[in-house]
Amino acid sequence: MTVVQQYEEIAAYLRSSIREGELVPGDPLPSEAELCRRFESARGTVRQAIALLRSEGLISSGQGRRSRVLDHRPTQSFDDIFSFTQWCLTAGITPGQQTQWVTRKPADPRLAAHLEIPDGAQVVSVFRLRLMDGQAAMIERLNYPFEFGRHLLSFDTDSGSIYQHLLDCGVDIDTATRTIDAVPAEAEDAALLQVPAGAPLLRVRRRAFTTGGTPIEYSDDRYLHTKASFTINSTRNSPTALSMISS
Amino acid sequence: MTVVQQYEEIAAYLRSSIREGELVPGDPLPSEAELCRRFESARGTVRQAIALLRSEGLISSGQGRRSRVLDHRPTQSFDDIFSFTQWCLTAGITPGQQTQWVTRKPADPRLAAHLEIPDGAQVVSVFRLRLMDGQAAMIERLNYPFEFGRHLLSFDTDSGSIYQHLLDCGVDIDTATRTIDAVPAEAEDAALLQVPAGAPLLRVRRRAFTTGGTPIEYSDDRYLHTKASFTINSTRNSPTALSMISS
Repeated sequence: MTVVQQYEEIAAYLRSSIREGELVPGDPLPSEAELCRRFESARGTVRQAIALLRSEGLISSGQGRRSRVLDHRPTQSFDDIFSFTQWCLTAGITPGQQTQWVTRKPADPRLAAHLEIPDGAQVVSVFRLRLMDGQAAMIERLNYPFEFGRHLLSFDTDSGSIYQHLLDCGVDIDTATRTIDAVPAEAEDAALLQVPAGAPLLRVRRRAFTTGGTPIEYSDDRYLHTKASFTINSTRNSPTALSMISS
Repeated sequence: MTVVQQYEEIAAYLRSSIREGELVPGDPLPSEAELCRRFESARGTVRQAIALLRSEGLISSGQGRRSRVLDHRPTQSFDDIFSFTQWCLTAGITPGQQTQWVTRKPADPRLAAHLEIPDGAQVVSVFRLRLMDGQAAMIERLNYPFEFGRHLLSFDTDSGSIYQHLLDCGVDIDTATRTIDAVPAEAEDAALLQVPAGAPLLRVRRRAFTTGGTPIEYSDDRYLHTKASFTINSTRNSPTALSMISS
């Protein structure tokens, strides 16, 4: 059971004030004293909530003055990270998919390493073309150890969100590591996306883990470069969760 | 003057334990009770530090058990976000630059909008090829309103970090918004990077602001797709600062 702590309540209140537009970019946050009164809470608790919003990129450093609301896109929910379907719906776009294949096969060494399973262990892989408002937008490759992927073998992968189906089956998805880069389109992907081979694609690879740290998914999504971008706010004196890696 | 609060001290201790490898991926964090004893602090303070590490993508949700250290790259410092020079040095790479030009000119409407200055107001722009270990790696375009950019007109832009120079001149850089996507190389960039036109580049656009919210910089960096990627950890029940945007 999760106990909601008071700083989380205050943080949720401030986030929703920003999301609903009661606080707009450039506005100062309510003062600490005001928040203490409203929530009948200690100053430390209020500061805790404010520090959390800062690390989420929603407000400025507040050095020497009150923190301002930053220009931003809504922070992304965990569901939006996993579910292209959910991400499209949040953005007011009609999602779609054309499953190319679902297969059960032995893992090759590279995939086995990503999923931390023995070479040759069974995996379930899904290959879909994803659509935004009926237009080809992204090539999706999902891979699961059999223990988790077996839930997909009898699922209609043209019916929508695999992530939601896995949650419905009780699969425990706790953390995700994403790697974002640019790659040239290979022939198979280029044909499905109707672009020349070599065209720039925005690639998002994701590893997902259970609460205990067991890998549950390795995926590779490749977006037409005109269809998606990423944005993040960073504030001085607050570490940023996003790291740029050299290669 | 910044007062370091106790939860920040605890968070800094845990971050450095992870960075120094005393805690490795998969390890549980010390228990709340242990941290309370070590720092002679209240449980709420310890929880505050842990929540901060979670929003930075360093540890798992801890739902139902102790939070584990996640596989990660070090969180990125604010300096590394701004300074290619600093980012290279952190990664053990020798940074370099070949300045193509530094110019003072009136802002076109698009640049004026990014910098929130009147059309035609003076800006200082810098165009450099950046090198990693002597190899062409990135095309850098920096733009500043004259008020800030004037510090560069007498600076040797082949000598290193412009960001560090601006800080040394007392320029106040408080927040940054970055947008990350993939683009095809245009002719000028392709020639400098020695790749065919149309080759995929990883683009990072950045707007920077003062503490008061005044835009101070608009930049556009384009990396060879083989040279850089981004990585981020996300945890269930903790919003992620990085958003994917549809276009």
